[in-house]
Amino acid sequence: MKQNLTIIKVGGKLLEHDENIEKLAHYIAGLQGASLVVHGGGAKASEISQRLGFEPKMINGRRITDAAALDVATMVYAGLYNKRIVSTFQKHNVLTLGMSGADLNAIRARKRTVQSIDYGYVGDIEAVNKRAVKMILKLGVTPVFCAITHDNEGQLLNTNADTISTQLATALAEDYTIRLIYCMDKPGVLKDPDDDKSLIHELNHREYQSLKMEEAITLGMIPKLDNAFYALINGVEEVWITGLAELTGSDKMTGTRIYE
Amino acid sequence: MKQNLTIIKVGGKLLEHDENIEKLAHYIAGLQGASLVVHGGGAKASEISQRLGFEPKMINGRRITDAAALDVATMVYAGLYNKRIVSTFQKHNVLTLGMSGADLNAIRARKRTVQSIDYGYVGDIEAVNKRAVKMILKLGVTPVFCAITHDNEGQLLNTNADTISTQLATALAEDYTIRLIYCMDKPGVLKDPDDDKSLIHELNHREYQSLKMEEAITLGMIPKLDNAFYALINGVEEVWITGLAELTGSDKMTGTRIYE
Repeated sequence: MKQNLTIIKVGGKLLEHDENIEKLAHYIAGLQGASLVVHGGGAKASEISQRLGFEPKMINGRRITDAAALDVATMVYAGLYNKRIVSTFQKHNVLTLGMSGADLNAIRARKRTVQSIDYGYVGDIEAVNKRAVKMILKLGVTPVFCAITHDNEGQLLNTNADTISTQLATALAEDYTIRLIYCMDKPGVLKDPDDDKSLIHELNHREYQSLKMEEAITLGMIPKLDNAFYALINGVEEVWITGLAELTGSDKMTGTRIYE
Repeated sequence: MKQNLTIIKVGGKLLEHDENIEKLAHYIAGLQGASLVVHGGGAKASEISQRLGFEPKMINGRRITDAAALDVATMVYAGLYNKRIVSTFQKHNVLTLGMSGADLNAIRARKRTVQSIDYGYVGDIEAVNKRAVKMILKLGVTPVFCAITHDNEGQLLNTNADTISTQLATALAEDYTIRLIYCMDKPGVLKDPDDDKSLIHELNHREYQSLKMEEAITLGMIPKLDNAFYALINGVEEVWITGLAELTGSDKMTGTRIYE
């Protein structure tokens, strides 16, 4: 029988408050089965960039990762946030290992090809080193991945955390029964982004297509939902998009459950 | 029979040049037996602090780690430098895992007690989690430790990298035949700090005491030498203080060999 594995992707905005990391630690400590966390940190990286005197570069609303921005991302994701999470989890007796995709060559990516836009040091995932991740999970350890990968030729790459969690989940789906949770600063997928009460409790792919047609789903939510459906059709058992209170607030998770 | 383990502490100044990390990676890739690296990064942390708009605080020439300085240390040591080393090692096919002392609760420290000076978030090591470090080494992995530890109560702590390497070495001496190498931006212990040709090739404790009396050893070198002799009398087989060229430049290491 496959072991259960809970994969939680935590949005960067949630990490700005230490009490959120505490709540997450408490939740992870109470989980049955294996667990794995993936986190971002984009908002803090932008703040640090500005304090260091350079504005984050954007083209058509997309962030450009030049060499300086990559250094900041590496500092904030792999350093500041990753180690804050690790130390807080350890306090809650969760045996935790902070990692980037470079560690144990766990996630190999390729620098995104320049087409109309040069995104800079942004990596698109090529391969998850299943053997390495399983080796860590089998030790009873909770890996905490930051949104940094590498090309295995010495170059670190900034990589979307939603995509990392999705690719880890699908790579491990053969060996584990996986519940994948995208946890963010909203209670789930909303019909009206300004009204938390407009939460959609269940969403299947047909409904998602309709909502997209009606432009009832915000632009930022589309890649997340595309990831969620990709995970479901690639062997992940259960997928949720939810908020931290909805995840950790009671015994029964609420938020948006995603169905095929 | 005990397995060989080479522990290399790399000074932060060396890490400012990527080609040094390449040399180190090449050296590690060619080693027989297990290997473990510890690194600092103080100079870069000072630079980032200044660019963020606050001067590193010093009292009597000692660095004070306030909350802001700890954040910068965590960013630079655990993030920027640690992941640069990891990605470069991986390029050389060294299976590498970047770690802080918080990861796997590998190194637990206690915030230094305030006596005449409040050093802030500086940690004095209380315990090395031998079991965790051996578990990683047994997987054939090279752990790369940055100079960040924690108190296992959620607080990260800035900790001297020489001390970390010494404590790891002595903790593992029961299980491994250890060669401990403090690698820095000088060719070894010098009689005249301005003359690299004044290298002392061998140094025992009696000679060290004489040189200290003569004030022929610079102030910064004393804690390093104290660490070196501590390691020797606590089961570490072989101890060196050397430069990167002396370590990696030829088949035969030069520098200063330390004897009891």
